[in-house]
Amino acid sequence: MTGLTIALDAMGGDFGPQVTVPASVQALSRFTDLNVILVGDQAQIVAQLTRCDAQNHSRLSIVHAPDVIPNDMRPSTALRRSTGTSMRIALDKVAHSEADACVSAGNTGALMALSKHLLKLLPGVDRPALVTALPGANQQRKWLLDLGANVSCDADTLFQFAVMGAVLAQAELGRMPRIGLLNIGEEEIKGNDLVKRCADMLQSCQAVNYTGYIEGDQIYTGQTDVIVCDGFVGNVALKTSEGVASLVIDQVKTHLNQHPIKRWIAKWLFSDLFNQLKQLKPDQYNGASLLGLRGIVVKSHGRADIAAYENAICEAVHEVERQIPTKISDRLEAVLLERH
Amino acid sequence: MTGLTIALDAMGGDFGPQVTVPASVQALSRFTDLNVILVGDQAQIVAQLTRCDAQNHSRLSIVHAPDVIPNDMRPSTALRRSTGTSMRIALDKVAHSEADACVSAGNTGALMALSKHLLKLLPGVDRPALVTALPGANQQRKWLLDLGANVSCDADTLFQFAVMGAVLAQAELGRMPRIGLLNIGEEEIKGNDLVKRCADMLQSCQAVNYTGYIEGDQIYTGQTDVIVCDGFVGNVALKTSEGVASLVIDQVKTHLNQHPIKRWIAKWLFSDLFNQLKQLKPDQYNGASLLGLRGIVVKSHGRADIAAYENAICEAVHEVERQIPTKISDRLEAVLLERH
Repeated sequence: MTGLTIALDAMGGDFGPQVTVPASVQALSRFTDLNVILVGDQAQIVAQLTRCDAQNHSRLSIVHAPDVIPNDMRPSTALRRSTGTSMRIALDKVAHSEADACVSAGNTGALMALSKHLLKLLPGVDRPALVTALPGANQQRKWLLDLGANVSCDADTLFQFAVMGAVLAQAELGRMPRIGLLNIGEEEIKGNDLVKRCADMLQSCQAVNYTGYIEGDQIYTGQTDVIVCDGFVGNVALKTSEGVASLVIDQVKTHLNQHPIKRWIAKWLFSDLFNQLKQLKPDQYNGASLLGLRGIVVKSHGRADIAAYENAICEAVHEVERQIPTKISDRLEAVLLERH
Repeated sequence: MTGLTIALDAMGGDFGPQVTVPASVQALSRFTDLNVILVGDQAQIVAQLTRCDAQNHSRLSIVHAPDVIPNDMRPSTALRRSTGTSMRIALDKVAHSEADACVSAGNTGALMALSKHLLKLLPGVDRPALVTALPGANQQRKWLLDLGANVSCDADTLFQFAVMGAVLAQAELGRMPRIGLLNIGEEEIKGNDLVKRCADMLQSCQAVNYTGYIEGDQIYTGQTDVIVCDGFVGNVALKTSEGVASLVIDQVKTHLNQHPIKRWIAKWLFSDLFNQLKQLKPDQYNGASLLGLRGIVVKSHGRADIAAYENAICEAVHEVERQIPTKISDRLEAVLLERH
């Protein structure tokens, strides 16, 4: 096999192989140097491959996994009792250098714990962070981290998140990204001790372009490229955004369903506007990355559809091409040198 | 004077008397038993009253205040150096029982600190909480607290927030509201120590209808009436919601401005839909209440327009009519009796 290889937890997520298999086939068409290892129940995978007429795809292989990690399994249990599961075997492919990245839509806590255990952290990283790209005004992408991997963290960890987020954003933007700390006010005196201590660290660091505090309403409309916060706050911000976007879209749908003529006119005249609005739903940007590991792991939404899951695979491909773990390691080393 | 009396910090907010005075005049028309005391610069207030042709309104009086608390003044400074400011004099009217409630669009931190200092906390309350009503699916209002009055708090404080929020919501809904704790997952094992400890306390309390954890995406669409969290998280959730709503509305505006014919059709055919969408902006629900005080204080957005500021006055009127502080005090007493 030449090119790059992604190991897929084919059983993870609400729809399992029904989504992961056709998404893989589409990704293989998009990236001609991509190889995919589908890890999971062989019979189910073969059935879906047959539906896609891709059972003999030359860049696709199957590794049978008899078990699946349930969504309600605790991370600590997953560490002890996951031998033979699709998620663990897929991660092991990365750990053993048989794949360049792993994609899973399974249990987030288990994926975090197993990734850390099997792939290990990069030097200088205390905890991995979950990051995703978000839509922004003027079609500018933003990156928000941490999204829930760490429910509480100290200023050092938050600082590392800022550095890791900066590396990921820079690889896509091609310029030094602006880093902001999510706070409840823009003024210096606002916020809790955690953000104040981290702000001090970022202000005195040359390796990142720290631009100050930002408030929640500036996540989407402000000038900041990377927004840093602890996992509790980040998860609430992301989920709340999804809730508001869904509320708006539901209102539009309900209104148009009540007025068939308007619906017809809207479909005829405003379909491009509605498609644009749908793009604002944060879950359209599927594929959250676990940063800080000695390998690439991308988490898909559990309820991702085929297109969304394909986005998660694309994210993994880009991170392999951009050698994100190596870049994070280099940047952290530079920061540590600067600070000592 | 009969009826109820609201003392207004006429100088607070981005627009001062330009907004507060006409909003007061409108509120006086709406509530025939309402009296308003406008506290602030007499000349500016009289000028605005003249513009509204209301300089001789029988239920309106002016108390001159030579100073204004600046927006960037620290709460601790406001406590020491606020004599003669419109905010302090308005709060003093409540403290001395010359008014039933105070409304201000001024510096939030100063309003918090001065309210606590001048009005005092109710027995059983450790800290006041800032709460506001939010739009929800199916036109169900929701209440979110704390919105930033307390950047970090313990489980006891969070528990008190739940009880206070329940009282406010019940007075409007006329039924026992469902209380949820904002968390990063619905499962028992999810979240930080703070929410877990508070969940234990709420689960064993008969005086509130605790229905469990909720995630950010359920704030607007879920079945919960009152959503409880610490002030950092609540502020981020509220501001993020405002950001997403603004982003959507801006996209619609930009699109329609690019296509004049579509804009004309949209205005003709979809104005009711767009008005409905505008109602989803959380800042349309102006008037956040400071709960836990021996008096009623309502905080308006600094950039509220006349209609929004009138909403804040309405909120204050309703809280006076519903005797919210007495009800909170009674409920907290019942909870304390139950727990000991």
